[in-house]
Amino acid sequence: MSETAAMQIDSKRATTATDVAERAGVSQSAVSRCFTPGASVSARMRAQVMQAADALGYRPNLIARSLITKRSGMIGVVVGNVAQQLYPGTLQALATRLQAEGYRILLFTAPPDGPADPALEQIIAYQVDALVLAAADLSSKLAEQCRAAGIPVVLYNRTVRGQTASSVTCTNHAAGIEIAALFAAGRHRRPAFIAFDPAASTSRDRERGFRAGCRAHGLPDPIVEVGASGDAGARRAITSLLSRPNRPDAVFCPFDQMAIVAMDVARYDFGLSIPNDVSIVGFDDAPPAAWPSYQLTTYAQPVAAMVDATAQLIVEQLADPQARLRQVQVPGHLVLRQSCRLPRSQEPTR
Amino acid sequence: MSETAAMQIDSKRATTATDVAERAGVSQSAVSRCFTPGASVSARMRAQVMQAADALGYRPNLIARSLITKRSGMIGVVVGNVAQQLYPGTLQALATRLQAEGYRILLFTAPPDGPADPALEQIIAYQVDALVLAAADLSSKLAEQCRAAGIPVVLYNRTVRGQTASSVTCTNHAAGIEIAALFAAGRHRRPAFIAFDPAASTSRDRERGFRAGCRAHGLPDPIVEVGASGDAGARRAITSLLSRPNRPDAVFCPFDQMAIVAMDVARYDFGLSIPNDVSIVGFDDAPPAAWPSYQLTTYAQPVAAMVDATAQLIVEQLADPQARLRQVQVPGHLVLRQSCRLPRSQEPTR
Repeated sequence: MSETAAMQIDSKRATTATDVAERAGVSQSAVSRCFTPGASVSARMRAQVMQAADALGYRPNLIARSLITKRSGMIGVVVGNVAQQLYPGTLQALATRLQAEGYRILLFTAPPDGPADPALEQIIAYQVDALVLAAADLSSKLAEQCRAAGIPVVLYNRTVRGQTASSVTCTNHAAGIEIAALFAAGRHRRPAFIAFDPAASTSRDRERGFRAGCRAHGLPDPIVEVGASGDAGARRAITSLLSRPNRPDAVFCPFDQMAIVAMDVARYDFGLSIPNDVSIVGFDDAPPAAWPSYQLTTYAQPVAAMVDATAQLIVEQLADPQARLRQVQVPGHLVLRQSCRLPRSQEPTR
Repeated sequence: MSETAAMQIDSKRATTATDVAERAGVSQSAVSRCFTPGASVSARMRAQVMQAADALGYRPNLIARSLITKRSGMIGVVVGNVAQQLYPGTLQALATRLQAEGYRILLFTAPPDGPADPALEQIIAYQVDALVLAAADLSSKLAEQCRAAGIPVVLYNRTVRGQTASSVTCTNHAAGIEIAALFAAGRHRRPAFIAFDPAASTSRDRERGFRAGCRAHGLPDPIVEVGASGDAGARRAITSLLSRPNRPDAVFCPFDQMAIVAMDVARYDFGLSIPNDVSIVGFDDAPPAAWPSYQLTTYAQPVAAMVDATAQLIVEQLADPQARLRQVQVPGHLVLRQSCRLPRSQEPTR
């Protein structure tokens, strides 16, 4: 099927790529490249073509084009059940970054109580060029199925066993070690960890690093409670920890949302003072962490750099389907606020 | 181009709709309807066809099909610059609801500092079946352009002048009146309003209702400050209000995020007690409103019902392009918590 045939399918738009090429004084293939997501074209050429396209009212039909180029210009993004795991800023940053590469995000969400995985058939049917799995509670199976179906997959903020897909994460293990070191420096004695979901790589890697850090810095093994299923799960976990006769004096929560629930329970249900009675540290540096009511000490997840790495992996894999899988780890950094006791010398002023 | 031809374009998939129709003992058009977003088909027919499709490994190519049916199965959702205006729960609810109708969301976002409107060319090029404009800071022009291009548009949580598009909003005007009544009942004397953006219909409607309510309940006209541009703008506005010699004793913020900033500034910058020194009321009932640190009295925006109405309007307009435009208003309700002084008799127990 020729390009012209594809254009004629949509009878509303009469101007063809040939008209644009003629007016811009370039080849038809140059026009086509200008309108193909991810295709290489110089800024000057693009300006020339766009000017001609504007003047003629040329509207490329990307859907028809996708039958020729085998590119739909769409990246599927799968988000799971847990709305708060993916802060709106992250999805927006990802959409904005991919748009800069000429792609749009096609969103796949899970029904509230169903399985987190969308049907593979749906993903294939929409012919997305690549897929970003951006939810901690998706199964690893989907990544493998997509890869088998020839759809490049990038895992955002998680990994899978066996490394069957490229991934972008924060340096989760190192972060866990660093938080243990912070607790040790503040002379804490009874560390604890609230696990999100033992099956989720992100929570697991942070826990492993934290355990290793506790050992390395002379702290006992952390007490671990599972706080899955959103705020209610986090509330149960922190309540259980703080009800112990010898309650922990330092709690690491692998997500800020969990840490915020923990702070509220500690203050309002147990009447504890933070950080005098118990230190609480989160992970993400989500907006509420900086709110005066929380002033949460947390490990900042480098969203912009992670989003950038994700876009780069997608572009790489689309340019070369044989490209080596890569596990990219982007370093974050501790943000010291008020929720964790520090050695006297390091206390920040409010 | 016949259906079979469309299928052959993708050489990886050999099974055709004809094979499925034969096995299921139904017509080919029935198979086609089963895989066409929004097409009418009985549950029994669907089950029969899906079973046959599963058995044969039939994978419809929706992109190729869209050239025949003129339906892409995609609804464009445009979100603006302001990430916090559309809580992640809303986008997820919208995606889940539209998926139930057989549609996926194609996301259009604005670059951080560019204009909020995506290019019309892009929206047309991707051949979305309909468009949801879900950002307060989009121009009304886009809605009109899309309508002129034959793409049904639904405005979510906003309206446009001249009613050139269908819209779904909360009963914003009535809510403003109700909040004024609440302030009057709690014996407040100096009401104030922080406007989000005088050009945004949502903020404007809430302000108008609030003004009318103040008048109706014997309160003076509210002092109004503009608090646009995210948290920083809200901070400036509440700081200016609380710095007045005769500072307001009741502030209505048309979004919870703004109310939370206002509470933090009142408490931590001005040392005020809420609600003893100043009452603050928000709008949305976003998750942080219920957090113990805020216990924000707010007007709950009925997200599920609004999302439902949005999906219904889309289905209506796709079924009948001549369908009358409708301005749907869904009633919300006040949620009384701790941030607004009440008449003694109504005080809730914590």
